[in-house]
Amino acid sequence: MVTTPLSSQPAPTLSPLNVPQRLLLGPGPSNVNPVVLAAMNTPPLGHLDPDFLGIMDEIQTLLRYVWQTQNRLTYAISGTGTAAMEATLANAIEPGDRVVVCVKGYFGHRLVDMAQRYGAQVHAIHQTWGQPFSKESIQNAIETHRPAVLAIVHAETSTGVRQPLEGLSDLCQAHGTLLLVDTVTSMGGVPIKLDEWGIDLAYSCSQKGLACPPGASPFTLSDRAYAKLQKRSGKVPNWYLDATLLEKYWGSERVYHHTAPINMYYALREALRLLAEEGIENAWERHQQNAEYLWSQLEAIGLQMHVAKEYRLPTLTTVRIPEGIDGKAIARRLLLDYNIEVGGGLGELGGKVWRIGLMGYNSRPENVDRLLQAFKEVL
Amino acid sequence: MVTTPLSSQPAPTLSPLNVPQRLLLGPGPSNVNPVVLAAMNTPPLGHLDPDFLGIMDEIQTLLRYVWQTQNRLTYAISGTGTAAMEATLANAIEPGDRVVVCVKGYFGHRLVDMAQRYGAQVHAIHQTWGQPFSKESIQNAIETHRPAVLAIVHAETSTGVRQPLEGLSDLCQAHGTLLLVDTVTSMGGVPIKLDEWGIDLAYSCSQKGLACPPGASPFTLSDRAYAKLQKRSGKVPNWYLDATLLEKYWGSERVYHHTAPINMYYALREALRLLAEEGIENAWERHQQNAEYLWSQLEAIGLQMHVAKEYRLPTLTTVRIPEGIDGKAIARRLLLDYNIEVGGGLGELGGKVWRIGLMGYNSRPENVDRLLQAFKEVL
Repeated sequence: MVTTPLSSQPAPTLSPLNVPQRLLLGPGPSNVNPVVLAAMNTPPLGHLDPDFLGIMDEIQTLLRYVWQTQNRLTYAISGTGTAAMEATLANAIEPGDRVVVCVKGYFGHRLVDMAQRYGAQVHAIHQTWGQPFSKESIQNAIETHRPAVLAIVHAETSTGVRQPLEGLSDLCQAHGTLLLVDTVTSMGGVPIKLDEWGIDLAYSCSQKGLACPPGASPFTLSDRAYAKLQKRSGKVPNWYLDATLLEKYWGSERVYHHTAPINMYYALREALRLLAEEGIENAWERHQQNAEYLWSQLEAIGLQMHVAKEYRLPTLTTVRIPEGIDGKAIARRLLLDYNIEVGGGLGELGGKVWRIGLMGYNSRPENVDRLLQAFKEVL
Repeated sequence: MVTTPLSSQPAPTLSPLNVPQRLLLGPGPSNVNPVVLAAMNTPPLGHLDPDFLGIMDEIQTLLRYVWQTQNRLTYAISGTGTAAMEATLANAIEPGDRVVVCVKGYFGHRLVDMAQRYGAQVHAIHQTWGQPFSKESIQNAIETHRPAVLAIVHAETSTGVRQPLEGLSDLCQAHGTLLLVDTVTSMGGVPIKLDEWGIDLAYSCSQKGLACPPGASPFTLSDRAYAKLQKRSGKVPNWYLDATLLEKYWGSERVYHHTAPINMYYALREALRLLAEEGIENAWERHQQNAEYLWSQLEAIGLQMHVAKEYRLPTLTTVRIPEGIDGKAIARRLLLDYNIEVGGGLGELGGKVWRIGLMGYNSRPENVDRLLQAFKEVL
């Protein structure tokens, strides 16, 4: 066979990749530990190679440690955090299920939209962007709706609020409700203990507290959540994220499901290994200390934090944009003149706050100093 | 806040990542061009950084070239090829739509399963594993069922068959049917011209003909497919893969949807750039020549190909396992003693064939020689 000539389009001519070096102090991605980045530059193995299967087992063990869970079904979803979010809902919800979603920021709204697509009867409860829910308001919603699933964000990336989760599992279990928690901006940087707190479904991402590039995302199901999945009458309406198929690849059967993003799994394994080497409680402490240093330095130049200190995330800080200042223009100058990325406000907080992340490898005093120096110059 | 001590699990202790170097001559992933692999080791940018948005534009331009299409909606899905497969179905199908799936191998069955999950009334037609469909049998199915979508695999990774696609679009358009094509094992290695052949929806992967790691997967929609999407009555029942949301991120609006797998996009951009530099028609010709060399060398040691030469893929060859030979044991020896991966049979061809890929960077005569030397020693 001789290949026929092209009909139309000529080949584009491009230069080799050339990327500026930025300090990523926005809501994520954050900078990657160089050891993890180097692991990306490792030749791929086959997705059923015994050596690769061993790496998958290590990822499972390390994720259980970082999340403090014994859940058998604890592995990575082959996509970014949003895919892992969708995986929890797709597997937990059957059409017609009542689901209570606690909305106190952008990602609560996303949970509502996703849950509806999976046929849930969603009851959203709302809290001001910048405050956590009280236990009483959640209790009311559970008692009123007796939902199959209660979904709540631990660390709202859009507001910088840490939602206390202790005590919710008792309420949930008393009403046959599964507790589903977004730990995207908490995993690796904010204390979280899935089993002690009775969390049934959780997801996260790789590019924040884990200091890994985005593309492979932590996911876990408790035995209670698995029991609901086993009893569902129809197939999970999402093939790629179907946990009944994924467990056959991640578990002992090793049945081919999809080609894993091999190099992303290398990086995730290394990121988790380094976190275990540091010790998860030391990582939590480091994030807290550096965040407190950031807050004191920002306050010293007259800036105000949006969230009360008690509920402020150590990983992501929302800083109020002072009156008369064009927040977007400042962020653009920081990016283009100083190579520092900070985030703008999202949704209700658009134009009102900057979002400053100190996550994973970036949670270090010298990054606070570099940011503050730049802030002083541009403000 | 002082972080509370851990309740239970101690930190696992692991050595740094240590991965053997394999020559990946199975059905994929294949080895990655070192330039592409090095691009993975580039610090991430933010997913809304102007420099990153420029890279996304380049990916779109390059994908249009490699697929030979002008489709505006041509971009990468942030997952592996299976996610891109699901993206085409999730966006094309509305509940109750009739869908004809041409099943002549494992991935046809996967299309059936996925399409059913999106509420399609699926009519599968079947062909022997190892042969293509005739145009007549497809015409019959279209005339009988008048489906909304006809789904067919161009290059069946499980059988090594190339399905001729020329002429199908006339049949489809005459009956208001969208033509959906799996190009996972053809893109970059087997001639394909989406616009000339009137293909409405297509998907692929990065880890075969493109010589990139897996994790970011080509996806495209024609104007006809987009028109159907615009008219649907409900939301796409998959949030992560919803093309109406994705176009706002990939298009001029630049609305945040999900955090792209930044480093995977770097790699995909470089892999596509190198393919454009080689020239897509030269890449097709190279794959054909090296495959013919492989076939002649395998025949010279007495092995038989499973597929007639006319329909044999240049990217993936199915070789019959001779009587009395334990195919699995041979593959295992090649892997562990020679660091060469070849694939076993899948589904109906389990135990009957080896699957040998010569894809992307691996399509080179020296790889054929190395494989043949090893084959001669183990057989």
